Amino acid sequence: MAEDSRVHRLDLILQHVRNVPDFPVQGIVFKDICPILKEPKALAAVIDLFEEHVRQKHPHTELIVGLEARGFLFGPLLAQRLGIGFVLVRKKGKLPGPTVSVGYTLEYAKAEAEIQADAVQPGQKVLLIDDLLATGGTLHAACELMKMQKAEILGCLVVIELKDLSGAEKLPVPVFSLLQC
Amino acid sequence: MAEDSRVHRLDLILQHVRNVPDFPVQGIVFKDICPILKEPKALAAVIDLFEEHVRQKHPHTELIVGLEARGFLFGPLLAQRLGIGFVLVRKKGKLPGPTVSVGYTLEYAKAEAEIQADAVQPGQKVLLIDDLLATGGTLHAACELMKMQKAEILGCLVVIELKDLSGAEKLPVPVFSLLQC
Repeated sequence: MAEDSRVHRLDLILQHVRNVPDFPVQGIVFKDICPILKEPKALAAVIDLFEEHVRQKHPHTELIVGLEARGFLFGPLLAQRLGIGFVLVRKKGKLPGPTVSVGYTLEYAKAEAEIQADAVQPGQKVLLIDDLLATGGTLHAACELMKMQKAEILGCLVVIELKDLSGAEKLPVPVFSLLQC
Repeated sequence: MAEDSRVHRLDLILQHVRNVPDFPVQGIVFKDICPILKEPKALAAVIDLFEEHVRQKHPHTELIVGLEARGFLFGPLLAQRLGIGFVLVRKKGKLPGPTVSVGYTLEYAKAEAEIQADAVQPGQKVLLIDDLLATGGTLHAACELMKMQKAEILGCLVVIELKDLSGAEKLPVPVFSLLQC
């Protein structure tokens, strides 16, 4: 992809991120990605840029692993572009059948992330995806789940990275973010 | 799409639905759609069939409205195929900014569905999407939200319809389901 095309796409995505002050709690400026979903060209731009990155840097990716719930918005689109499968990481109690889970602390709460025990095979090359990287708690938990399944984690993909919170430092793999705020 | 191609796609989708007994509670046989997501051809088949239906029956659709969380897996894919926007219906408290919400009773719990107040404009032609229609509580609540926003609801799309629970009878618009169990 030519550099001006990449800049044009990033600009379109940025125009569709809305800052919402004091959500979900006082003092937090929430990055609302709903406008991206409402504008098909902005959503296509997100997937174009993720696809380009994966084809260049991780061409042997076998699975996209997406985090509930906003990772579900982008993950299946990317997986379809790449012609590979998508696996769900959910909050505890949502997935049927034998599962594996791990506890973690969120920016504003505690939670437990879960995966189906047969979702990922040992040695499979996976990329994790979510909408936003804040403190990295959820993505870190998802990486733990992947390690428990002996998957090979190639990296994490996020639309937005909140640089001030240094979430990427907590993760065991490189993070690719489209926007850094 | 030729009839044999449609049958082939439906068969592929059916092969990737897993029955999980006694989840989330004793006596319920849960229809697990995770295997569809893991097999890119099965997921493509779902979107192919939804796209064909919408282009034939609802060519003037302006928005796809998806229900948290499994509606998020299919909705953005369909919206991208159609070149239109995707709007999120979420559980209460998850969406930033001014919202509109409505309470409802689920198959096994109570909940509240919410939408951003500016997500849908009066008169907009919308289609609702979710993975499964059981008693219809969540889709009914989403229809109520659309009515509150004065949207024109063209119909509901689901991958699986549990016919015995008669959820479609509760809804104010036609339901299009790929599989009927």
